[in-house]
Amino acid sequence: MMDAADTIFIPCLDDMLAARDRIAPHIHETPVMTSSFINDLAGADLFFKCENFQKAGAFKVRGASNAVFGLPAEKLEKGVATHSSGNHALSLSYAAGRRGIPCTVVMPRTAPQAKKDAVMGYGGRIVECEPSTFSREATFAEVVAETGAEFVHPYNDHRVIAGQATCSHELLGQVDGLDAVIAPVGGGGMISGTCLTLSNLAPNVKIYAGEPEQADDAARSLKAGHIIAEDAPVTVADGLKVPLKELTWHFVSNHVTDILTVGEQEIIDAMKLIWKRMKIVVEPSSAVPLAAILRNREVFAGKRVGVILTGGNVDLDALPWINN
Amino acid sequence: MMDAADTIFIPCLDDMLAARDRIAPHIHETPVMTSSFINDLAGADLFFKCENFQKAGAFKVRGASNAVFGLPAEKLEKGVATHSSGNHALSLSYAAGRRGIPCTVVMPRTAPQAKKDAVMGYGGRIVECEPSTFSREATFAEVVAETGAEFVHPYNDHRVIAGQATCSHELLGQVDGLDAVIAPVGGGGMISGTCLTLSNLAPNVKIYAGEPEQADDAARSLKAGHIIAEDAPVTVADGLKVPLKELTWHFVSNHVTDILTVGEQEIIDAMKLIWKRMKIVVEPSSAVPLAAILRNREVFAGKRVGVILTGGNVDLDALPWINN
Repeated sequence: MMDAADTIFIPCLDDMLAARDRIAPHIHETPVMTSSFINDLAGADLFFKCENFQKAGAFKVRGASNAVFGLPAEKLEKGVATHSSGNHALSLSYAAGRRGIPCTVVMPRTAPQAKKDAVMGYGGRIVECEPSTFSREATFAEVVAETGAEFVHPYNDHRVIAGQATCSHELLGQVDGLDAVIAPVGGGGMISGTCLTLSNLAPNVKIYAGEPEQADDAARSLKAGHIIAEDAPVTVADGLKVPLKELTWHFVSNHVTDILTVGEQEIIDAMKLIWKRMKIVVEPSSAVPLAAILRNREVFAGKRVGVILTGGNVDLDALPWINN
Repeated sequence: MMDAADTIFIPCLDDMLAARDRIAPHIHETPVMTSSFINDLAGADLFFKCENFQKAGAFKVRGASNAVFGLPAEKLEKGVATHSSGNHALSLSYAAGRRGIPCTVVMPRTAPQAKKDAVMGYGGRIVECEPSTFSREATFAEVVAETGAEFVHPYNDHRVIAGQATCSHELLGQVDGLDAVIAPVGGGGMISGTCLTLSNLAPNVKIYAGEPEQADDAARSLKAGHIIAEDAPVTVADGLKVPLKELTWHFVSNHVTDILTVGEQEIIDAMKLIWKRMKIVVEPSSAVPLAAILRNREVFAGKRVGVILTGGNVDLDALPWINN
């Protein structure tokens, strides 16, 4: 496993700039959208960075592409591997497919068929495990032993964080005079990339994270001053259930002004508000920052705020406000 | 009523150009989006003109704004009026609100409360009628007699058609080398505006319309060579139930290459495909052109096709693919 080696390497601004050039042919520069209705509601000027329009439907393709296209020639044949049942699995499969190398994804056999189909649609190979940490780690170790594939962790990986950091770099080029940027925090890949870029290029821009109350391990970590991992949290924002790790804790603990938590109904309401007023499809995790802004209007009043909409991969047959 | 006078006035290119300048401060230049997945599926290069992102959520704000902002000073005090339970009601209310003049909308008392709330949200006044043509016309005549308001018909109005024509003018500036443009047809306001602009500025671009099989009066009209009106058609594409009128028939009969009809399930499938792959919210009527392309691949194979996504006002609590 690469974890031990990777955690000692903190990515810096040059890594982000290299990532930007490396992944440019494989990703979209996503648009920034605004809504006068939502601005009135929030009492602030919100600039939504639409990573729901990103390739593979989420920002995670930035980090995955940076890892895949940065692989040295001698590692290509054995390909890449990861464990994920979410957007990182899709994104790594997409990037590996673009580079024409193998990608193996360890995924619980209980994961939704739609997710499995999407990974296979991008050319990824799925190896199923039981839905437990033990089974996942054992199965993943077997996969790596068998294939020799390069492990690309969903977020605790310097290449991945440098890739995610390109998102707020784009945002800085698209919107002038930002006072703050807010992104959701789960494992912390996006918020760490945001910290990397803004702390170097726009140190006066405050960085906030939004997190579900029901998976508030990052908020509690920030208060405690060390990583607190939660055991199997339950939230509609299913991208945000994983804990911080060493690399992302480095960025969160050094650069995040505050982590604002929100309830489940607030997340669902904010998600529906975005769909209804902005006419775009975002997943529940994407709505957490807007929910946090609407709950903490005094923090953002009159400010120009970048809001990262992290992804749009949602099961259209099971929307959280229907039969909820 | 203004119908008789209006129908003799066919709007021309100068009317579209005047409309463009008049409405520019009040509408969005909407983006064009593409989807490599849908292109592969269609075997064509599709350029989606996203009027779902338009002010008030639909292209109709173009025509409504042109009518409202073109009103002479002496007519302002009495305001405007229309009968509509759809996007024209919202759009006229929006435009009148921007100009600070009264807007009265006659709407069946059975119309969804959400639509009534939206009209009132933009400052429109609602006068309810019974859900019959007789009651609507009688109630509307009373409103006009009482207020002296200017009638702005949802589509059979030269000012409205000139306004809708600005949409394909924008599209021509955004996409080079189009072979065809396709829009849905209901009353024919959008398709007439498309004909107005393209027949003048890009006469080699073929114009197609998409229409629900279950409301195929325009397709039958085109075959018959005269207007056929259908009595109360039933389709999920609720914006497309109204018949052609004199002005829109003029454009359709002179400039439309073909009207392609599609079934209800095809409309729902195309709508869901747009939501799922493009991550945008469109209403059922907007999906009719894509459904028509996917059913008639041979017509569009290898072509560069502009596809007008007409609007995004949909009841998020009642999606047609859930419990359908």
